[in-house]
Amino acid sequence: MDMLWSGWGDPAKAQPLPDSVVGLLRELLGVKPRGAEPVALEDIPVPPSPLDPAAHRALLSAVDGEDHVRTDAETRIRHTRGKSTPDLLRMRSGDAADLPAAVVLPASHDEVLTVLRTCAEHGLGLVPFGGGTSVVGGLAPERRGTFVALDLRRMDRLIALDPVSRTATLQPGLRAPQAEALLAEHGFTLGHFPQSYEWGTIGGFAATRSSGQASAGYGRFDEMVLGLTLATPEGTLDTGRAPRSAAGPDLRQLVLGSEGAFGVITSVTVRIRPVPQVRGYEGWRFASFEAGAAALRRLAQDGPRPTVLRLSDETETLIGLAQPDAIGSVDAQRAAGCTAIAGFEGTEEDTAYRRDRAAAVLRDCGGTPLGEEPGQRWAQGRYSAPYLRDSLLDAGAFAETLETATFWSRIPELYASVRDALTATLTGAGTPPLVMCHISHVYENGASLYFTVVCAQGDDALAHWTRAKHAAGEAILAAGGTISHHHGVGTDHRDWYVREAGPLGVEALRAVKRRLDPAGLLNPGVLLPTD
Amino acid sequence: MDMLWSGWGDPAKAQPLPDSVVGLLRELLGVKPRGAEPVALEDIPVPPSPLDPAAHRALLSAVDGEDHVRTDAETRIRHTRGKSTPDLLRMRSGDAADLPAAVVLPASHDEVLTVLRTCAEHGLGLVPFGGGTSVVGGLAPERRGTFVALDLRRMDRLIALDPVSRTATLQPGLRAPQAEALLAEHGFTLGHFPQSYEWGTIGGFAATRSSGQASAGYGRFDEMVLGLTLATPEGTLDTGRAPRSAAGPDLRQLVLGSEGAFGVITSVTVRIRPVPQVRGYEGWRFASFEAGAAALRRLAQDGPRPTVLRLSDETETLIGLAQPDAIGSVDAQRAAGCTAIAGFEGTEEDTAYRRDRAAAVLRDCGGTPLGEEPGQRWAQGRYSAPYLRDSLLDAGAFAETLETATFWSRIPELYASVRDALTATLTGAGTPPLVMCHISHVYENGASLYFTVVCAQGDDALAHWTRAKHAAGEAILAAGGTISHHHGVGTDHRDWYVREAGPLGVEALRAVKRRLDPAGLLNPGVLLPTD
Repeated sequence: MDMLWSGWGDPAKAQPLPDSVVGLLRELLGVKPRGAEPVALEDIPVPPSPLDPAAHRALLSAVDGEDHVRTDAETRIRHTRGKSTPDLLRMRSGDAADLPAAVVLPASHDEVLTVLRTCAEHGLGLVPFGGGTSVVGGLAPERRGTFVALDLRRMDRLIALDPVSRTATLQPGLRAPQAEALLAEHGFTLGHFPQSYEWGTIGGFAATRSSGQASAGYGRFDEMVLGLTLATPEGTLDTGRAPRSAAGPDLRQLVLGSEGAFGVITSVTVRIRPVPQVRGYEGWRFASFEAGAAALRRLAQDGPRPTVLRLSDETETLIGLAQPDAIGSVDAQRAAGCTAIAGFEGTEEDTAYRRDRAAAVLRDCGGTPLGEEPGQRWAQGRYSAPYLRDSLLDAGAFAETLETATFWSRIPELYASVRDALTATLTGAGTPPLVMCHISHVYENGASLYFTVVCAQGDDALAHWTRAKHAAGEAILAAGGTISHHHGVGTDHRDWYVREAGPLGVEALRAVKRRLDPAGLLNPGVLLPTD
Repeated sequence: MDMLWSGWGDPAKAQPLPDSVVGLLRELLGVKPRGAEPVALEDIPVPPSPLDPAAHRALLSAVDGEDHVRTDAETRIRHTRGKSTPDLLRMRSGDAADLPAAVVLPASHDEVLTVLRTCAEHGLGLVPFGGGTSVVGGLAPERRGTFVALDLRRMDRLIALDPVSRTATLQPGLRAPQAEALLAEHGFTLGHFPQSYEWGTIGGFAATRSSGQASAGYGRFDEMVLGLTLATPEGTLDTGRAPRSAAGPDLRQLVLGSEGAFGVITSVTVRIRPVPQVRGYEGWRFASFEAGAAALRRLAQDGPRPTVLRLSDETETLIGLAQPDAIGSVDAQRAAGCTAIAGFEGTEEDTAYRRDRAAAVLRDCGGTPLGEEPGQRWAQGRYSAPYLRDSLLDAGAFAETLETATFWSRIPELYASVRDALTATLTGAGTPPLVMCHISHVYENGASLYFTVVCAQGDDALAHWTRAKHAAGEAILAAGGTISHHHGVGTDHRDWYVREAGPLGVEALRAVKRRLDPAGLLNPGVLLPTD
């Protein structure tokens, strides 16, 4: 099944807004119903593919078969841009400017190598395409010349599983639920559950350093990766002979986060764990975001470590986004303070021990237990926020997210300055926003902050958001945060990323890119500036 | 205090061999007393420094003062090579061929930058020098032209400590005990205790991806690092704005393990932890290495995780190297099977829980508890093996170590093939060895193997060892291991490293080196082949 071309996910799972929320949007934010419906897919004006016949023939022979090089309008539209709100607004308005010339579907590492050589020979750019879920412009390269999208969906196999070492080698086009199903046949799980879970792919998780909602227990995706194979225009890079090594810089860490700019990830060896016997999620209430953050910090630093650990600020708690299924409900609005979710997965015994000890710590930090009901509601609604966004856009609201991370001592300043920057900019533009935030991932030394912004679309939502996003990026850098904790750089964050990595850091990476992709055909302008 | 120039450590801590061991060496390995004493330092023929006067003046002005550019024979000898057994044999024989032209002692990041520019202007090579403890030829660059050693001992400050985030920023020249003392003043520890602990420096740990004996609990050094500053001939590279980030490839991981080939590490921000309330180490006995390894694997994968976890094979257990202080004792020889050490550090409560639960797992895996005495003896003797080596060399024996790592399922093959390669080669050379091994570090997905080899020096110990080491390197690569788990690449492992990283991996790193060090002045031939 294909994802909704102009929005998120499976159209059958659309989440209409409750009337209470529509009322809330109108009263609180002045949201007015939109006049126009989104353009229909078949009404988008799509120019014929600019792929020249010789290149087309060469690609056809690289991937063995007509069905594996597609130039029809629908397939090309479905591989245009990603799923940021600006991406969706552009798609809904029928703007097909970032359309690839063709979509190529390789079946193997060797076919990817051949496609790369073919692109180099014919001067084509190439954008690796997994689940198409980028929210940072990672699928929209600089518009200079013809480019193709390389859709990896045919590379969807479990290549190897080593139950003794607890490792599995997966192909990049596997979506997370497919990967989990294949591992579950052997009693294992990857434990990677990002909000994009239903659509995100193994290759995409690696290329963007994805982080899932159970990262406190299972780690970030980049921490799960033990080995990678990268197909580049200059050949193959194979990494990962041992879990850890002192043999030079860690080349895996050069591939992780490279966002298709160095090559195409064609296999990923990951750490796997036994499917947990027990899964349980609980709600906790704290008097303030500060008090809740202190409690999360104590668990992250001194343990015991929950598998899931997150904390909504006062606004997010009030609106009920901590449990998306309950948005606008009386229940959520009755809540004061901040809601945290603590989840535990593992064996019966270990889970019971950790839950009891963690409960003692959370109480000691001023937390009030809310029982399992808020935890279950969170778990039920954990993938529904992007569906909700489509309904908000339909209703005339603008909704978008951004995220960052820093060390614990800088969290209060980072939190305040990003929130203030977003509020001030959008208020100044005449669309005062609701800015909500949660701590989404915790580490011994710091945490990530995940912001959700909702406001009226106003006259020109795209322009307003561009200004707000710019102000947030500046606030993040000024407060010492990273421009992205788990969404990646893409094109949207590139200018801040260049400042974060510093001139010499960028030059080191560009030197790698020039060596692996001398013609600069891979994702031009994504991650790194072009020459 | 300076380290013994021709051997290890503080001369006052020399460990003479017990008579029982001398007997054992003679009977078991045919070790004959050496005829000649090592050459005295003052008798080593040292040519005058080839540093030309203009370069000398420029360096003097870079580091502000005559005492900070040293060209006397003793200082140059003390900065020649590292502490591998071949290094020591060469030094003991008075071979000063790898002597630096001068030793430069900068006091700050900016002085390091100036020294690098000066070296570039005057065509000098430069070898960063921390504790001088490399055992892989990391301090002996290719002999082509004049080079200086950059001794970082003056950069020995704690720059910042953040008790909320639990981070500390340290200068690179700090030795581990100095760093621990500075952190202890604030109630914190780094928890990094490699065998080189007394001499190794923060910069060296980072540059070589060091791993300490408590890595099961505190992690490897590269896992402790949150940020690094690197001075390169092209300027400064600053990394680490957040504990984790999705903003591109992890540049920290490009600096870690770079062994001075990309630049000089001038500050390291590390994760710190509260000084543990409790420290306890226990011995366990297993019927076989295989049974013990299975038990370690279970703890590493399912927990609870000890802070220290190691297992000696049958030979190492028999010889008593599991407790270096007890070598040759009746106690050690009475032992059958394999000895493991499990250590626990932390709070009273957490330590008690983990110890009890781990004990249940170890019993379930067939382990027999030996109580705290073997654990205490291990802890007491944990830094003494390199002292012992000097005594073995004095007695006419040859002793050296090497180490590797792989995934759990490949451990048996890696173990057997490295052991067999060492045994066959040295036996063929007429010096049949004792080959001992222990699992020194454990991970969820694999472990490291640390081999110790002792044999008679024979006619030409260096040549024999070169052949044995070559056979071991080939065996490691053939069995899927990494050429080094925690010693690094240096010059000794470079040829295997090149095969391990693969042509494109090496080319990516050389591209980085060319960008950061265009003249190739930094550690030429260390880590990467020269052009």
